[in-house]
Amino acid sequence: MPVNLTSPVAARLLPVAGVFLGITEANIKREKRKDLLVMQLSEGSRVAGVFTQNRFCAAPVIVAREHLAQPDGIRALVINTGNANAGTGEQGMRDARTTCAALAGLLGCKASQILPFSTGVIMEPLPVGKIAAGLPGCVANMRADNWFDAAHAIMTTDIVAKAISKQVIIDGVTITITGIAKGSGMIHPNMATMLGYIATDAAIAQPLLQQMVGAAANRSFNCITVDGDTSTNDALMLIATGQTALPEVNDANGTAFTALQAAVTEVAIYLAQAIVRDGEGATKFISVQVGGGRNEAECKQIGYAIARSPLVKTAFFASDPNLGRILAAIGYAGIDDLDIAALKLYLDDVLVSEDGGRAASYREEDGQRVMGQSDITIRVVLNRGAALATLWTCDFSYDYVKINASYRS
Amino acid sequence: MPVNLTSPVAARLLPVAGVFLGITEANIKREKRKDLLVMQLSEGSRVAGVFTQNRFCAAPVIVAREHLAQPDGIRALVINTGNANAGTGEQGMRDARTTCAALAGLLGCKASQILPFSTGVIMEPLPVGKIAAGLPGCVANMRADNWFDAAHAIMTTDIVAKAISKQVIIDGVTITITGIAKGSGMIHPNMATMLGYIATDAAIAQPLLQQMVGAAANRSFNCITVDGDTSTNDALMLIATGQTALPEVNDANGTAFTALQAAVTEVAIYLAQAIVRDGEGATKFISVQVGGGRNEAECKQIGYAIARSPLVKTAFFASDPNLGRILAAIGYAGIDDLDIAALKLYLDDVLVSEDGGRAASYREEDGQRVMGQSDITIRVVLNRGAALATLWTCDFSYDYVKINASYRS
Repeated sequence: MPVNLTSPVAARLLPVAGVFLGITEANIKREKRKDLLVMQLSEGSRVAGVFTQNRFCAAPVIVAREHLAQPDGIRALVINTGNANAGTGEQGMRDARTTCAALAGLLGCKASQILPFSTGVIMEPLPVGKIAAGLPGCVANMRADNWFDAAHAIMTTDIVAKAISKQVIIDGVTITITGIAKGSGMIHPNMATMLGYIATDAAIAQPLLQQMVGAAANRSFNCITVDGDTSTNDALMLIATGQTALPEVNDANGTAFTALQAAVTEVAIYLAQAIVRDGEGATKFISVQVGGGRNEAECKQIGYAIARSPLVKTAFFASDPNLGRILAAIGYAGIDDLDIAALKLYLDDVLVSEDGGRAASYREEDGQRVMGQSDITIRVVLNRGAALATLWTCDFSYDYVKINASYRS
Repeated sequence: MPVNLTSPVAARLLPVAGVFLGITEANIKREKRKDLLVMQLSEGSRVAGVFTQNRFCAAPVIVAREHLAQPDGIRALVINTGNANAGTGEQGMRDARTTCAALAGLLGCKASQILPFSTGVIMEPLPVGKIAAGLPGCVANMRADNWFDAAHAIMTTDIVAKAISKQVIIDGVTITITGIAKGSGMIHPNMATMLGYIATDAAIAQPLLQQMVGAAANRSFNCITVDGDTSTNDALMLIATGQTALPEVNDANGTAFTALQAAVTEVAIYLAQAIVRDGEGATKFISVQVGGGRNEAECKQIGYAIARSPLVKTAFFASDPNLGRILAAIGYAGIDDLDIAALKLYLDDVLVSEDGGRAASYREEDGQRVMGQSDITIRVVLNRGAALATLWTCDFSYDYVKINASYRS
């Protein structure tokens, strides 16, 4: 069950002026399941995104990158679940283009103004006929207040839908930001079987929009791991429709940009953490804070060694304070000149280790108490600099194995 | 259950002239369990080894390295299970030295002529009193034909003991090599919760002995992964007692060295594969061959991305040919200029993928047939060079989680 994560309340998800969402059941992998989403954008909307760095990236990722580079402006996104259209070679590329062309025909725009996204099983042909047959249903269903259904339509092994809205007032103008995401397994940065879509009604200049989505991803989706597997299909898209009275944001040092960046990052962090809380088989949500490092990179390197260790994760599943496994992970993280005698390890507020061994003040019952919680922070203080990184992960349970052993059945 | 691995037959484990083994029940972690081993070496024996690269390496690893650097020659090794004496700070160092001194007193040698090894739980104080109390029992038990009991005495979560003997005839002289190892979880190169001891009665010059153990490790223990965790305590030791008529081997290009290197490497590969076959919860033994690479490093990098992927490993557990997960792992291995359209993926003899997608000839029933086997080879042909690497791993099952969630209880 998801760890301290409840389903979003439909009434709290705010429409974003200029974004319309249509959902249908296209029977892509299973019957009677919302599995196809179209997000239509008003003219003049801008879109920026970050994509997986997997060399085996999926056909829709390649096509979406191509289309984003065109000057005409994006008018719609089409997202299917049930099939990733990854590892599908040239046929996969043709299928992604066919999907775009079919939707463009319905919306009266160019195929290059459509961004395609797919998530689901890898290396099986995309059922492009079913998708094309479903698109008119999406178009007929198009509404501004469809975010709740949209969040459900992109789920695969997710148990809970992930969506949030936030408003900020900038120069007296209320700006709305609404985001949805999916992901539960194959989660590791750069990025994971993760799809995220965040839209705002503010107007943001294109280069700043790209900067904003990159910065938000680095503090959110690039700070999570469930199983260390980086997916072929990950994408985080940031949409700015420019449908409010606020003038276009075009100064990266201005207060409007700063306020928007903070709000977008906050939405992205909520969604990224929700993915970990809903991590496959998760029973605990674990924050890994590594501080006192020479730079952020080494903090993340140590954090990920801890966060992806199956031994650490099974110990947390068992609520067993077998905390030497955390020391072992720190030790093999690859920091060659790390002085283990200088570092301190805390579990929430409990000092576990210092001087290269167990802290004199540490008592097993204190470790046991923290281990019994569902939200736990592992804190490592390296004492060799001022840099800091925080990552989020979950524990590793029987159900992770069960879910992934039966994924295709 | 171990995958196609049976317990060694005591009668087939050959004594190595100059090595005597004594075992006792020291009650280190549990009662009534052989958990303390002393290997006594005849005078003039040479020892070389490779150790974990974990920064949080255990106290016995530090002390063993120190003692190996002394000129006096090693006279005995002492190995306990049940406690790793890792993450134990200064007290751990004192405990390792106390263990050596206690054994040196019994054997009439210097403490620096003893090498200590520990394996078991991390960050708990070594029960050095129990070990010291057990040592006389080991000494009283000392025999040349005790290899079978020795292999059992070093087990932790291992189900099956790992031991093998081999003989080669060099210049008319029969040379014996016998090796034992332990390890089942926390297995990943450089190295793992792995202890290995290989002894030969040949005489080998010290620098060549070091070269031989390094080369053997690189083709064996540095080619396996169970869970991607690198332990604090790993060590592989190679002992040469020089108790045969064969003159000292001191030419790295000579036939004697070549023959011995091949035999030692063969023993090391058997032991390393045995560790994977007995991997925690393993139901399948998987060889990962990556060929056609520019260099061995990139072949290993791709091989390890596959071999440690929880998604790949759970698919093998389920006998589900969800082979796109292998492509995804290849894609995120970090080879930036990898041409995915050029590579081919085989499962045993079945061509699964080419041209960036599923092979036209691939049929699900062929993949399913291979997936049903207990020994499976994943073969990747990169088509960008002539280098090759082979790694070994196992699948990821419910029992892995079960074993590691209950390790300390």
